[in-house]
Amino acid sequence: MSLNEEVELLRNIPLFANIEPSKLKLLAFTSERLVFLAGQDLCAQGDMGDSAYIIIDGTADVLIDTDDGVKSVTKVGKNDVVGEIAILCDAPRTATVRAISDVTALCISKDLFFRLVKEFPQMAVEIMRKLATDLQRTTGQLSRALGRAGD
Amino acid sequence: MSLNEEVELLRNIPLFANIEPSKLKLLAFTSERLVFLAGQDLCAQGDMGDSAYIIIDGTADVLIDTDDGVKSVTKVGKNDVVGEIAILCDAPRTATVRAISDVTALCISKDLFFRLVKEFPQMAVEIMRKLATDLQRTTGQLSRALGRAGD
Repeated sequence: MSLNEEVELLRNIPLFANIEPSKLKLLAFTSERLVFLAGQDLCAQGDMGDSAYIIIDGTADVLIDTDDGVKSVTKVGKNDVVGEIAILCDAPRTATVRAISDVTALCISKDLFFRLVKEFPQMAVEIMRKLATDLQRTTGQLSRALGRAGD
Repeated sequence: MSLNEEVELLRNIPLFANIEPSKLKLLAFTSERLVFLAGQDLCAQGDMGDSAYIIIDGTADVLIDTDDGVKSVTKVGKNDVVGEIAILCDAPRTATVRAISDVTALCISKDLFFRLVKEFPQMAVEIMRKLATDLQRTTGQLSRALGRAGD
């Protein structure tokens, strides 16, 4: 893929919509593109992680370990960001992300992530929105699970 | 409280630690300080919300409704931020925050919140860290509750 095609692809990711093309070229140079085959893990719960992923193509399952086995809590796909919690909190991965189909993802290192959110406040706002939406969904699931567990 | 005392108080809130005093004066002018008596709600689950709160003094319980009654999911206190999810997601409050002791809080309107995070990237990073930490804790609680619920 040419650099221009790469920049065009990045421009279509809503997270980068407001970032100027010259900056996106830098991002295209400094971020790594990875392919995960169906069944492979983008990240595994409990591992230390120093990268976030932006899914460019394909879908993946977000799985958490419970005393009652592994449960799927949500699915992610094109343009979704995963793995940012571990780099924000310096903590182990909170969930496993497993490719359902073949997944192409942009790997954003911790350093690059912090440079991007500091340089592009709109991107920080989008990441905050994403975290808040995830937290809202998880709180809803917890509310229902606590009701069932009777605890 | 004098304006200088107010600015000094704001400077001691970690979220604002890197913001210059002249900007903090603006914040002191534009944000409202509210007092909630023990037992009063800073916000109620299900209500629409257009403000976040930074707790200056006191402690509060974060409560969610479940089929099995109201459950406390965490406690918050001095320097904690609450209520930012509803303004980030334009969605109803995900939880009730109820004062345990008398609580003094700085009320940050939605407009002011977005102006602050855009102007002060470090504040955006701190808010992201806070959301990620909350999400990590909630995912852990969900994992345990799903194990117990056997669902």
